[in-house]
Amino acid sequence: MLDKVKPDSGFEVITKHFESIRKLTEDLCQGLDVEDYNLQAMADTSPVKWHLAHTSWFFETIILKRFESDFEPFHEQFEYLFNSYYNAIGEQFLRPNRHLLSRPTVAEVFEYRRNINERMVELLSSAEGNPKTDILPLTVLGINHEQQHQELLLTDLKYNFYQNPLMPSYRHAETDPPENSVNDLKQRWITFDSGVCTIGKALSDGVAEKFGFDNESPQHKHYLQGFQMCSCLITNAEYIDFIEQGGYQRSELWLSDGWAVKNEHGWKAPLYWFKKDDAWYHYTLDGVKKVQDSEPVAHVSYYEADAFAAWKGARLPTEQEWERVAAEQLVSGSFLQAEHLKPIAPKTGDAVVKQVFGELWQWTSSSYSPYPGYRPLAGAVGEYNGKFMINQYVLRGGSCVSSQGHIRATYRNFFYPDARWQFSGIRLAKDL
Amino acid sequence: MLDKVKPDSGFEVITKHFESIRKLTEDLCQGLDVEDYNLQAMADTSPVKWHLAHTSWFFETIILKRFESDFEPFHEQFEYLFNSYYNAIGEQFLRPNRHLLSRPTVAEVFEYRRNINERMVELLSSAEGNPKTDILPLTVLGINHEQQHQELLLTDLKYNFYQNPLMPSYRHAETDPPENSVNDLKQRWITFDSGVCTIGKALSDGVAEKFGFDNESPQHKHYLQGFQMCSCLITNAEYIDFIEQGGYQRSELWLSDGWAVKNEHGWKAPLYWFKKDDAWYHYTLDGVKKVQDSEPVAHVSYYEADAFAAWKGARLPTEQEWERVAAEQLVSGSFLQAEHLKPIAPKTGDAVVKQVFGELWQWTSSSYSPYPGYRPLAGAVGEYNGKFMINQYVLRGGSCVSSQGHIRATYRNFFYPDARWQFSGIRLAKDL
Amino acid sequence: MLDKVKPDSGFEVITKHFESIRKLTEDLCQGLDVEDYNLQAMADTSPVKWHLAHTSWFFETIILKRFESDFEPFHEQFEYLFNSYYNAIGEQFLRPNRHLLSRPTVAEVFEYRRNINERMVELLSSAEGNPKTDILPLTVLGINHEQQHQELLLTDLKYNFYQNPLMPSYRHAETDPPENSVNDLKQRWITFDSGVCTIGKALSDGVAEKFGFDNESPQHKHYLQGFQMCSCLITNAEYIDFIEQGGYQRSELWLSDGWAVKNEHGWKAPLYWFKKDDAWYHYTLDGVKKVQDSEPVAHVSYYEADAFAAWKGARLPTEQEWERVAAEQLVSGSFLQAEHLKPIAPKTGDAVVKQVFGELWQWTSSSYSPYPGYRPLAGAVGEYNGKFMINQYVLRGGSCVSSQGHIRATYRNFFYPDARWQFSGIRLAKDL
Amino acid sequence: MLDKVKPDSGFEVITKHFESIRKLTEDLCQGLDVEDYNLQAMADTSPVKWHLAHTSWFFETIILKRFESDFEPFHEQFEYLFNSYYNAIGEQFLRPNRHLLSRPTVAEVFEYRRNINERMVELLSSAEGNPKTDILPLTVLGINHEQQHQELLLTDLKYNFYQNPLMPSYRHAETDPPENSVNDLKQRWITFDSGVCTIGKALSDGVAEKFGFDNESPQHKHYLQGFQMCSCLITNAEYIDFIEQGGYQRSELWLSDGWAVKNEHGWKAPLYWFKKDDAWYHYTLDGVKKVQDSEPVAHVSYYEADAFAAWKGARLPTEQEWERVAAEQLVSGSFLQAEHLKPIAPKTGDAVVKQVFGELWQWTSSSYSPYPGYRPLAGAVGEYNGKFMINQYVLRGGSCVSSQGHIRATYRNFFYPDARWQFSGIRLAKDL
Repeated sequence: MLDKVKPDSGFEVITKHFESIRKLTEDLCQGLDVEDYNLQAMADTSPVKWHLAHTSWFFETIILKRFESDFEPFHEQFEYLFNSYYNAIGEQFLRPNRHLLSRPTVAEVFEYRRNINERMVELLSSAEGNPKTDILPLTVLGINHEQQHQELLLTDLKYNFYQNPLMPSYRHAETDPPENSVNDLKQRWITFDSGVCTIGKALSDGVAEKFGFDNESPQHKHYLQGFQMCSCLITNAEYIDFIEQGGYQRSELWLSDGWAVKNEHGWKAPLYWFKKDDAWYHYTLDGVKKVQDSEPVAHVSYYEADAFAAWKGARLPTEQEWERVAAEQLVSGSFLQAEHLKPIAPKTGDAVVKQVFGELWQWTSSSYSPYPGYRPLAGAVGEYNGKFMINQYVLRGGSCVSSQGHIRATYRNFFYPDARWQFSGIRLAKDL
Repeated sequence: MLDKVKPDSGFEVITKHFESIRKLTEDLCQGLDVEDYNLQAMADTSPVKWHLAHTSWFFETIILKRFESDFEPFHEQFEYLFNSYYNAIGEQFLRPNRHLLSRPTVAEVFEYRRNINERMVELLSSAEGNPKTDILPLTVLGINHEQQHQELLLTDLKYNFYQNPLMPSYRHAETDPPENSVNDLKQRWITFDSGVCTIGKALSDGVAEKFGFDNESPQHKHYLQGFQMCSCLITNAEYIDFIEQGGYQRSELWLSDGWAVKNEHGWKAPLYWFKKDDAWYHYTLDGVKKVQDSEPVAHVSYYEADAFAAWKGARLPTEQEWERVAAEQLVSGSFLQAEHLKPIAPKTGDAVVKQVFGELWQWTSSSYSPYPGYRPLAGAVGEYNGKFMINQYVLRGGSCVSSQGHIRATYRNFFYPDARWQFSGIRLAKDL
Repeated sequence: MLDKVKPDSGFEVITKHFESIRKLTEDLCQGLDVEDYNLQAMADTSPVKWHLAHTSWFFETIILKRFESDFEPFHEQFEYLFNSYYNAIGEQFLRPNRHLLSRPTVAEVFEYRRNINERMVELLSSAEGNPKTDILPLTVLGINHEQQHQELLLTDLKYNFYQNPLMPSYRHAETDPPENSVNDLKQRWITFDSGVCTIGKALSDGVAEKFGFDNESPQHKHYLQGFQMCSCLITNAEYIDFIEQGGYQRSELWLSDGWAVKNEHGWKAPLYWFKKDDAWYHYTLDGVKKVQDSEPVAHVSYYEADAFAAWKGARLPTEQEWERVAAEQLVSGSFLQAEHLKPIAPKTGDAVVKQVFGELWQWTSSSYSPYPGYRPLAGAVGEYNGKFMINQYVLRGGSCVSSQGHIRATYRNFFYPDARWQFSGIRLAKDL
Repeated sequence: MLDKVKPDSGFEVITKHFESIRKLTEDLCQGLDVEDYNLQAMADTSPVKWHLAHTSWFFETIILKRFESDFEPFHEQFEYLFNSYYNAIGEQFLRPNRHLLSRPTVAEVFEYRRNINERMVELLSSAEGNPKTDILPLTVLGINHEQQHQELLLTDLKYNFYQNPLMPSYRHAETDPPENSVNDLKQRWITFDSGVCTIGKALSDGVAEKFGFDNESPQHKHYLQGFQMCSCLITNAEYIDFIEQGGYQRSELWLSDGWAVKNEHGWKAPLYWFKKDDAWYHYTLDGVKKVQDSEPVAHVSYYEADAFAAWKGARLPTEQEWERVAAEQLVSGSFLQAEHLKPIAPKTGDAVVKQVFGELWQWTSSSYSPYPGYRPLAGAVGEYNGKFMINQYVLRGGSCVSSQGHIRATYRNFFYPDARWQFSGIRLAKDL
């Protein structure tokens, strides 16, 4: 997948892209206090500082170390400290302990970023007229990697801030936006016929314009039975109905593992929700807000999504069903750059199937597994995706904190079915 | 699936089948001491006594309670004590505590079985000439349920006996059988072409002759890319190679979750194996034996099967690939009634793809999920399969402790990927 | 302590005592079903069968192995299987797994006992006229060890039976005894003056008549401030008052660790208690019974005893205070041989401080620690007591399941402060 | 204990003392980066920021809230956020989550301190000529409380820094001090005779000059058997001997619970120690240093101290033995203000029993329990000590990070026997 970049055109474009994405990551940190950079409430969430360092580590360890002729590490222990999970590179500092790294300081990590940026730009310029080098495709991979961590940085920070009873606001929005009143929002079922369709990304695509991760390939045929898909994401109003009709107490709606997990954790509503004076509130990146009826419900686990679907007499879509629907649409929706930092209600002008991209990751019923003929990338980056193809479920579509331009119809995200801290929502499907 | 039994022909056949399967369960207990009936080394394994009671509970609670006009429970607390996981029926005695039920005694449980048998036979005779009753199809379900527990009874007992340093023998075989010397056994790759194939069991099949569980339906089309499948199950010799070439120490071969689980438990070989004086031994239902080279390797987790496949440059088959191969074969192989109680080497006379049925359950790479259009059965038996369709992986083919006549090409078994106490083995596949 | 037995008089007396104590252990098993012998609901409780075997193991491993000239083990693996915690002897089969030993069978364990009995009696006769041998003192130790396990056998069995919703009765008492109505029972405070007193057992005592464990010695001086002690054990009526006045909800009454443990386990009453139709019931060795007002409250942890004391404006006695009071009394009370198997109300004829011996073990505020000058026994039996002198608290007085003749004023029992399955009750003290 | 302050003389002295102790706490933070203030590697260790806030909370909640006529909280949620364990005051923010409080920021916490200081000084001046007020004695309690947290601040920080592979230095000492070569250091046994002695602090002492915590009272008589005490703390050289003679592998030296804990955690040396190229190193507040032979061994658990004692054929002293020895000495030794931040070798000029105060807390064999006649303080401060009198063991003498003037012969510190992060060392005793 990384073997077909067009480097003559690519060098300047990629450098520019590199610089803007790197800058965006740092822009996301404006308004944070130094104290905010190191929060880690559970092993799954990494501190902001760690995200800042690890994305630089990726460029240093995967690219500079291999291609710089006079490579010297910025700091001899960073390779170990900021390695996430690459066994091929070496041991990793324990994930749950990332919050214990008060040093390097925030200022030192920003210095680390500056240093890596400079060296990367210099290296990229050396790639000009060197059509066979892996520098450019690996840089594109590193850029996409950084975009993933931009999303995680916000997602994790939301979870970590939430542990503080002071309920800090990530930014200081002046007032609540008026609820976008979509009084006539109606879920509709759209029908799709049976037949063989094409799934995944062809390997012959160039990297620069049409990047894809290895897990999206190869492109292959898939037979789909006819199905129906719901026009909109499930709204808070619909989900409140589920709660108030006893959805969390009716075992027959739940998968066996889901019922056990729900009971163990005492879930009674989505993550971040609480009830006060008979009204639902939730914690957002703008602090505590009232839950808005017409906005999509977010921060539900696979188990809750599945139970909700059962309650509606429906089911979650497979990832192939979702991709078939998405393939017909332009990639538009509320992404990170729209700065809502929460999902919003559908607009009337949207396509028949609305809210396909942006807003919320949509749980599919598909276990994350290799496509027929899948081959991981060579080298350490072969650990990027392949080794996680077990026990997780695919989510599609990107979210309100996904970086614009990072998402496409073939994009596969994946989490364990009990995960709730992601911006994850519900799209329903049905058999014909 | 249960709606098309032919009751006029069925009544006598089913009664006879019922009686013989019920007897087989009890025959499996010959040679056990009373003390052996209540062992439970982990929550997943149930005591023999519990299996004996629960299979009776199924007939009493699902059938007699509904159809007996003057139904009275054999014992008022058995509905609670021997309910496995049916929330629709009521609360369940805690699974990990089954070994704490010294009462009812073994003799009382056999009396319970006798009582249920009598009442079932009487009820079955009343079903004659009553074409619309669910009695016959539910009885067929109960018979198949009992067959599943025959297998579990032995599988669990093996695990539970194994905890005892005395390494008890389930039966007293006089001597070791000579190793079946298959010196010329060669793994061969058999090629299968791309195309749409048919998967699953059609719902119009009658129950008595052609029973299937709800999870095998509906029959549906599936597009298969061309693939290759290995002619034989992986042997102990091949697996010892993997071990001795450092397979358990090479992280690049393992799924991330598998690597973590392996390290946590310190796995260095299949369950039941140990090394002594440079030779491999394993615990079997006949006690400790030397590991035979040409026999299929058993008691491996999905993670080990997957790592072995990676080491071979291959992969596990999908359940559809497996079913396509199996659909062309007769259901023959070593099942429970062959009384080997362990998998044996392939015979020369076998089909091109050998050891498809019997011997060992074969891990597939397919997550256990509903087929398109799947509907669980109505009522409490709707909890039989559907609620487990998450986090587990499909195994196919039956094993040396599966009851003869219980297995078919569409049969789907399922376990968590870390399970090793089942008779589970490895079949490899490859992309073309 | 074991060095001063009078063997000429001792040999016959000890043999007789040995035989009667060994027989009593087996008598306690009358009425048990084979299935009852192997229950183990938590690591702390051992199966009946294990108690039967381990007490024999003690004689075989500590005495026969050392003194029999032609010693051969009854079974080569029993030394490992039935070793409780003696590291000097070797590794131990994992304590929480004792319930997994279906073999040896109950019959084999009784055969083991018979064999050990025969060999012990033979060995004892050889000790005649051999004044320097350790055989007699070690046999006396083994007899006292067996008595301890008689108590544990019943205590553990009660806990293990209790896990079964059928609530089995250990024996079949015809009817409830009428409540012994002690309407005029009044707690009184008895005053004891300050001064130096003598605590513990002098080392010069002979073993046969006046046996003591090493932890009771040496005898030493202790300065006691003046104190008051309550005349009777705390009754169920008094404890119900504590419950109903919110005792379990008032953090200020509880030790910090106790409050945490209580909350973690959700304790709301003593172990074995439940409320039904506004009345308190508890599980006893005779099955479920109504809680009787005037009987002493049993099966409370140190934490509950301490919180109750705080609620009364009192405290638990130190073990020295208790011993000073007990030293003035005859050792009389309801022990095992009285066959109540539960504590009973005090009788009017008793001493001023009543219920000092028998009925219930009384928690003291004394951490279990060595007396000044303490020396453990030599050899493996040095592990009998000394290595447990940490984190546990001393209980005094014996209980309704302690073997008659086994208890004395200097006797120190010890358990962790969260233990509730022992027959443990509450005696209060106060500063002057 | 708080009832006898002499307020006319006390007011100015106490105010001055208050200001200097409050300043010392902040001085300890010089040289820390903002990122260092919020580390918490385990629930037992609190972040520096939390210590800074909680000590202020104590003055605000215990004193200002009660005595300020127009009291308004500095921040309405601080009472909850910085409550350590006072149930009488209300719920507490979860202890293990203290590191998740990025807000209030470090600057805000210093502002909080400044505010409390001002209001306290104002309140103190109002206490002049008000002989019956509790303001002065409570302030003295608060000052002593702050001193305890000065020690904890450094002790916790050491542990938290240690988790970082960069091994940060708390301060930047230029060079290693030369090892204080005490070549002729010899442990000697000093003998003390039997007899009744006086233990604890009399309640009639004034507070200002002679403060004591409630757990040190009342003064009472105690009978001591004759004993010997070792002249010096156990040195690193002596402890290395223990290690190298297999001390950590010999179960017969260990308490049963200690052996289990050691195995569970894989302890092979004191906390902070590691071996490199055959030499022992340890992490100190000045970074990684070579272990010096003649310095006292630090950071051992009770279990290790006890096993070491057993190896030496000795035992730990009781707290009464220790106090008897200490009562004859001046309180001198290396405390916090000496700025060693580690224990040092004994000097020749010391008393016969050396290193009694300062250097290291000395484990005693005494379980932490109330003295005869003990009464906790009234009100919320009654939770200060009393509710912890279970499961912990008493340490005596103070350490190199204890604040000068805070320690006395009657001072009782207490920790669980598995604690190693305190500056805890070993003093041996022996029976005569």
